[in-house]
Amino acid sequence: MEKIAVDAMGGDFAPLEIVLGAIQAVRDFHIPVVLVGAEDQIRPILEKNGADKDPLITVHHASQVIAMDEHPGMAYRKKRDASVSVGARLVRSGECGALVAPGSTGAAVTAGLFGIGRIRGIERPAILTPIPNKKGSYTYLIDSGASAQAKAVNLVQNAVLGYWYAKRVQHIEDPKIGLLNIGTESTKGSPLVAEVYELLEKQHLFTFAGNCEGRDIPTGDFDVVVTDGFTGNVVLKFGEGVGGLFFELLKDAVYKGGLRAKLGALLLKPALKQYMMKRIDYSEYGGAPLLGLRGGLVICHGASKAWAIRNAIRAAEQIASEHIPELVADALKGESLAVADLEEMKDED
Amino acid sequence: MEKIAVDAMGGDFAPLEIVLGAIQAVRDFHIPVVLVGAEDQIRPILEKNGADKDPLITVHHASQVIAMDEHPGMAYRKKRDASVSVGARLVRSGECGALVAPGSTGAAVTAGLFGIGRIRGIERPAILTPIPNKKGSYTYLIDSGASAQAKAVNLVQNAVLGYWYAKRVQHIEDPKIGLLNIGTESTKGSPLVAEVYELLEKQHLFTFAGNCEGRDIPTGDFDVVVTDGFTGNVVLKFGEGVGGLFFELLKDAVYKGGLRAKLGALLLKPALKQYMMKRIDYSEYGGAPLLGLRGGLVICHGASKAWAIRNAIRAAEQIASEHIPELVADALKGESLAVADLEEMKDED
Repeated sequence: MEKIAVDAMGGDFAPLEIVLGAIQAVRDFHIPVVLVGAEDQIRPILEKNGADKDPLITVHHASQVIAMDEHPGMAYRKKRDASVSVGARLVRSGECGALVAPGSTGAAVTAGLFGIGRIRGIERPAILTPIPNKKGSYTYLIDSGASAQAKAVNLVQNAVLGYWYAKRVQHIEDPKIGLLNIGTESTKGSPLVAEVYELLEKQHLFTFAGNCEGRDIPTGDFDVVVTDGFTGNVVLKFGEGVGGLFFELLKDAVYKGGLRAKLGALLLKPALKQYMMKRIDYSEYGGAPLLGLRGGLVICHGASKAWAIRNAIRAAEQIASEHIPELVADALKGESLAVADLEEMKDED
Repeated sequence: MEKIAVDAMGGDFAPLEIVLGAIQAVRDFHIPVVLVGAEDQIRPILEKNGADKDPLITVHHASQVIAMDEHPGMAYRKKRDASVSVGARLVRSGECGALVAPGSTGAAVTAGLFGIGRIRGIERPAILTPIPNKKGSYTYLIDSGASAQAKAVNLVQNAVLGYWYAKRVQHIEDPKIGLLNIGTESTKGSPLVAEVYELLEKQHLFTFAGNCEGRDIPTGDFDVVVTDGFTGNVVLKFGEGVGGLFFELLKDAVYKGGLRAKLGALLLKPALKQYMMKRIDYSEYGGAPLLGLRGGLVICHGASKAWAIRNAIRAAEQIASEHIPELVADALKGESLAVADLEEMKDED
């Protein structure tokens, strides 16, 4: 298995929870990890947890940290020895197959872009985020926030990235790729998405399942939903917001419903926890990969604890071992994508 | 009170539920209504419900209907005597203050644009949709789907439309207007929203509360959230989808949770129905106004029943009586909007 670099200093609970998560990943999946960060803080945690002599765990010292509120581009340039940047360079050099980066999404994207580097032909890497669906699996939304603006070529590339991820990492035989739009007909939406619709119809790399409306994202009818990073990010965060609203309304109904409702809630609670909460808990899948780079990168929530980190390391290992970047690079070179059209579009800019 | 035109032939349950809803609105609020549609179908329903002699109810015959699946623009041109178009012309002529249109959103928007006509200076009318929030009130999302593409001037105008609606129809003293974006800083997002941010900061018609992220929509921190019709429509429908997912997950948890969970659900159900479902039921507010027209227009869900129609008629009456179009027209003429910038932007197209 390829080694996975882990930014041990990123996120709200670093380095403790990150190191604990890495130890768990090593024990559960035997994935070799490289913990990047302040050696004097990481070592004691390893020792305390009996993992300091584990041959699958290496510590790679980095003297700086990029904080959540720093400007990503500036911080990247100024702090050459930041843990997330050092981790990215370990991927670029080939020493590690992927990087797990908790903390600032902006810092992770910047480190990915400049530290790991893009696949030749990919203009803008994209974040893929799993959204739980009614079928009991996940629908993958790409781009969920890496680029605020997109051209047609970027959306087509997002589709390719999402396709290989769904097929190889999630083992979906024939992933259904949908285009996020405001209607189901091919002529619907902005000129941009109408153009992307045409391009996706022309290619023959994957099954284009047509337009996906907002309400269809959680049905499970689509495996991958393609959009620009602005719309994707708004959708993703709105989903969080609606989740919060739902539980607020639920609590409010229990409160107003008197003794009967309170008793009902008490009886129902364990089932909600065991079956419902688990399905919508991001820590179950650990993080969101930034695809389109020459190596793997999984971005984790700033509030990630050990369990999320453990799962993110597993996801990163799968991306590395399935050689997603190579598959994407091949697809971009091939005939199947109607590449001529894409090249033309790029020349227009 | 101004008369409200109601397209009695629109939606899945026309004309029965529409006419029943109109009768209820007349009885509850004493709003005079004009039922537009097939007289031979409408009259018997009025008679059967003892409303045929009510002086507040008029029937205005229209011989055609635009079906849900017709192309709005084509249907509008071909069917001059369609109920929704006839209703729109009653608003244009001043006979009615607003139109309530259940059924095809596209047909309603087209009838609004060409039948009622735009306010001078407004380029693209916008749909405003209430989204329930944690504070127990609604947050108004504008545009939630009238135009698939927007320029900066359109978004600024959406803000003006939303402001007057919130202030006059919803009686919010100092409505907080937010700009939907993917971060809170002023420089975040696409070039389009960054430009709109600057324009909204310059104007002094209303309080610009800054960027609103997707997760902030349901918090209630913003009264009006401004966006383009593409993003707005995706968000709105995704909200529906997430709502459906939650109830699916809830049902699933009850099912898997065994007898204890089933008993809990049984006890909790009445409170959920009474307090939670009511909060997220669109029929409580009836419909979504299309703002920016020279008269009022409230678009109702195709599946609207009498209660939704009753509430939509009340909403339409409030828009008509508060003279929203006049307030908007005045705002566009005034100094407060930094109109010079807006005019410049329009000239660029």
